[in-house]
Amino acid sequence: MDTAILAANEAFYDAFRREDPAAMDEIWARRAPVACIHPGWDALLGRDRVMASWRAIMENGAPPIRCVAPRVQRLGEAALVICEEHIGGGRLLATNVFVHEDGQWRIVHHHAGPFASGEPDTVAAADPHGPN
Amino acid sequence: MDTAILAANEAFYDAFRREDPAAMDEIWARRAPVACIHPGWDALLGRDRVMASWRAIMENGAPPIRCVAPRVQRLGEAALVICEEHIGGGRLLATNVFVHEDGQWRIVHHHAGPFASGEPDTVAAADPHGPN
Repeated sequence: MDTAILAANEAFYDAFRREDPAAMDEIWARRAPVACIHPGWDALLGRDRVMASWRAIMENGAPPIRCVAPRVQRLGEAALVICEEHIGGGRLLATNVFVHEDGQWRIVHHHAGPFASGEPDTVAAADPHGPN
Repeated sequence: MDTAILAANEAFYDAFRREDPAAMDEIWARRAPVACIHPGWDALLGRDRVMASWRAIMENGAPPIRCVAPRVQRLGEAALVICEEHIGGGRLLATNVFVHEDGQWRIVHHHAGPFASGEPDTVAAADPHGPN
């Protein structure tokens, strides 16, 4: 089952890379509520806003984004994929949430943001919730 | 049902504010897989790592964090809460994922990161996925 979730996750990045609005539309849930937090943006809630954001981003040209080290966490009929996004020399960390809908895994939420440059799984002494 | 999810979300922030490791432990899922992405950190996977990170953070003193404008997206036996985190003069944007387990809503994933300073729900022309 993880294979199908990982395939849906890859289809999401593939649609983005190919700047393919129809493929991007296909991978987002139809009935479950959807949301998206692009890096540094406010949260977008609802399918219309989310899809409009992707069309606007892709019209400006998609970056050469690659999904690296995806890890699946199953939650019944929902699933999380936590992965790195490598974009040129930059890295982001993403949470992608999927639901099983009409026999397919479709994305309902994407949240991408900055990644620490340090070692993986480090527990820093500093308070990461402090205002930076 | 949203009321119970919002109460679980508030219990999470309350445990953090009160620097209460036992309350923080209580609110995280027991059986569902858990993960956490603190702002700027790498992803932490697994209950032991996640709880160790909260203990380390709370030992250093919790910031005066407030959850603002939480919005619930139900996904069957799972749910997303998307909210702002106000910390002094700073703001973060968080995705919190909950599952219904043993009759309670428990958190399985927290991802917090920077917030745009602009207007809510703005679709920026710039590519937010570009390396910054």
